[in-house]
Amino acid sequence: MRKKRVVVLGSTGSIGTNVLRVIESFPQRFKVAGLGANRNAGLLAEQARRHGVRAVSLADTERVPGLKRLIGDVDVGVFEGENGLAQLATMDGVDILVSAVVGAVGLDPVLQAVDRGIHIAIANKEPLVMAGEIVMERARKSGARIVPIDSEHSAVFQCLNNAPVSAVRRIVLTASGGPFYGKTRDELLNVTPAQALAHPTWQMGPKISIDSATLMNKGLEIIEAMWLFGIDVDRIDVVIHPESVVHSLVEYVDGSIIAQMGATDMKLPIQYALTYPERLPTPFETVSLADIGQLSFARPERGMFPCMDYAYETAKRGGTMPVALNAANEVAVAAFLREELPFVCIPDVIRAALDRHDNMIEPTIDDVRQADQEVRVLATAAIEDLRRGS
Amino acid sequence: MRKKRVVVLGSTGSIGTNVLRVIESFPQRFKVAGLGANRNAGLLAEQARRHGVRAVSLADTERVPGLKRLIGDVDVGVFEGENGLAQLATMDGVDILVSAVVGAVGLDPVLQAVDRGIHIAIANKEPLVMAGEIVMERARKSGARIVPIDSEHSAVFQCLNNAPVSAVRRIVLTASGGPFYGKTRDELLNVTPAQALAHPTWQMGPKISIDSATLMNKGLEIIEAMWLFGIDVDRIDVVIHPESVVHSLVEYVDGSIIAQMGATDMKLPIQYALTYPERLPTPFETVSLADIGQLSFARPERGMFPCMDYAYETAKRGGTMPVALNAANEVAVAAFLREELPFVCIPDVIRAALDRHDNMIEPTIDDVRQADQEVRVLATAAIEDLRRGS
Repeated sequence: MRKKRVVVLGSTGSIGTNVLRVIESFPQRFKVAGLGANRNAGLLAEQARRHGVRAVSLADTERVPGLKRLIGDVDVGVFEGENGLAQLATMDGVDILVSAVVGAVGLDPVLQAVDRGIHIAIANKEPLVMAGEIVMERARKSGARIVPIDSEHSAVFQCLNNAPVSAVRRIVLTASGGPFYGKTRDELLNVTPAQALAHPTWQMGPKISIDSATLMNKGLEIIEAMWLFGIDVDRIDVVIHPESVVHSLVEYVDGSIIAQMGATDMKLPIQYALTYPERLPTPFETVSLADIGQLSFARPERGMFPCMDYAYETAKRGGTMPVALNAANEVAVAAFLREELPFVCIPDVIRAALDRHDNMIEPTIDDVRQADQEVRVLATAAIEDLRRGS
Repeated sequence: MRKKRVVVLGSTGSIGTNVLRVIESFPQRFKVAGLGANRNAGLLAEQARRHGVRAVSLADTERVPGLKRLIGDVDVGVFEGENGLAQLATMDGVDILVSAVVGAVGLDPVLQAVDRGIHIAIANKEPLVMAGEIVMERARKSGARIVPIDSEHSAVFQCLNNAPVSAVRRIVLTASGGPFYGKTRDELLNVTPAQALAHPTWQMGPKISIDSATLMNKGLEIIEAMWLFGIDVDRIDVVIHPESVVHSLVEYVDGSIIAQMGATDMKLPIQYALTYPERLPTPFETVSLADIGQLSFARPERGMFPCMDYAYETAKRGGTMPVALNAANEVAVAAFLREELPFVCIPDVIRAALDRHDNMIEPTIDDVRQADQEVRVLATAAIEDLRRGS
């Protein structure tokens, strides 16, 4: 069997490093062709050398000279800046694109890979949250297969197993609840980034960890699932499941529920996204229900965590509202991580930005980009207002 | 769409009456063509009239004149005695055979339907326990599709969803543990049939309820699963799950676990077995994990319930050993229900019969029938020995 050539965008991040570990476990199956990173030139150089890749891309142009010094002795192409990821994604002979970047930066390269009809393993929520309709429509045309890496969407993908959406009553995404579930607003007033980053069950990057603490992560997942599986948002529910063993489930019209479970290890959904439709023996940790003993489930408490409601609202309003949700959240989370915004004010910034955004219906990709930029300005202004007000 | 014509064997029993309820919910899809019962002429007549069936069968020939009086005014064929079920099963134009009888009596009609290559919904464990290799081999040749009704096997069937067995690491059958799980031998010494019949989560017929209390039911299910799914018995495990919400699960080689859940209502797996590969909206009760709250799992405690171990042992030894297991168990359970054998002695009778049975390797169907008869004699003798000894 010819090895599949893989390009990994976001290779130095939490998901990206796990993607490379999975690929290393199957050296007969996969070959890394290209790696893209944001700023971590040192790790990128080390990965490029280890995998003997054809090309790399570094977004931070100031660090490119340093990168070139580190890999000057090997034959590796170097792309840089804004378009570097798209150049990597569209190299000749690439079989699989793994998009493991965080944020809107993944939109362009994913769209270009979709148009080429290749296999896309996607961990990056934003292309689907911002432009899900466009991405899925183009994938239908090109025949590109989009397999999710996110544990919840991987679970739903596995539970659906190509069943028609007419057979589905509800998709139920599980949520651990994050580190603050069950706490009062008073208890959360002085939360520090370090506390918010301490997720109870999953090891993840900073942005997604904060999103888990606000339940915005679940909100973005709802919008992602809506597009990925072509199902009405009213048929997507969330259940709190603190053990994070059941990764999500599908309830069929005949009352049967199919659930997917596994270790809280991103290497498992990553492996599935790479090997689908095959399953290969894993070298990684697995779970046994008898060892776990108890699984618990509860309805999510909405009041304290309005971000999830905002996600339902924007999904229903459509147009560029989900773009606004995502952009405002990115700005608010970054401000919280810089300790310039209290944790409990993240939803307030998003609410203000949503209220001020002029929704564009049936947006083009350019409309999406414009809305993204405009809302970042609105959200930054909302944070300023809050700072002046306090 | 032409209605599918269904023959239901065992229509007056616990599964059979539920099969008819499911069929009544889909009058555009299904039409009952024939009904077979053991002794309950009154209910059989009522069912025959309600569904306007072409033919019925009653095993108990003494009750046939009574049956004929009850339905003399309608145009219904009447089969009787030992071969009645097979005659029903092989009527012209039958699309689906539902085998919901209890015991070895289902073997013949199932084999005949298998040879006709029709769709078989099977609740009757014995054809697979006694002659699984023969049944499955003949189904491969004829193209007959065998869809299980048992909630555990239906769950596994749904979780597998036609995946190759090479992708499976383990099948895990869930067991409620029955009414006596966790009790000591002393506590079980004076158990009455009424106590043993009170299953904590499922409403079932008497034989299967006692089998649940001894865990023999799980043992028979292990053997059934081995044949139905073509998997080595060492790759079939059992986990105690008192809530009976997870009906069973499949652990794949990549560490992913797919589980099927649903209400403890046989109408759901019955419906699936009838409509497969489609799923139709159910009119019956469904479950919500958030309402249930907690699910628990534990490794089965083997010492007190040796029947499950005997099932593994006979599955590995092969030949007619599973036939012996099943026959000895039927005799012992019947004796317990007549209050002629203490509950805790059921395994002793089975052990004695297994030890005295001459295993026949690669048995024909006639060998299977012969072994079944011989072991019944051995088990009856073992019960006599125990009675004289006490």
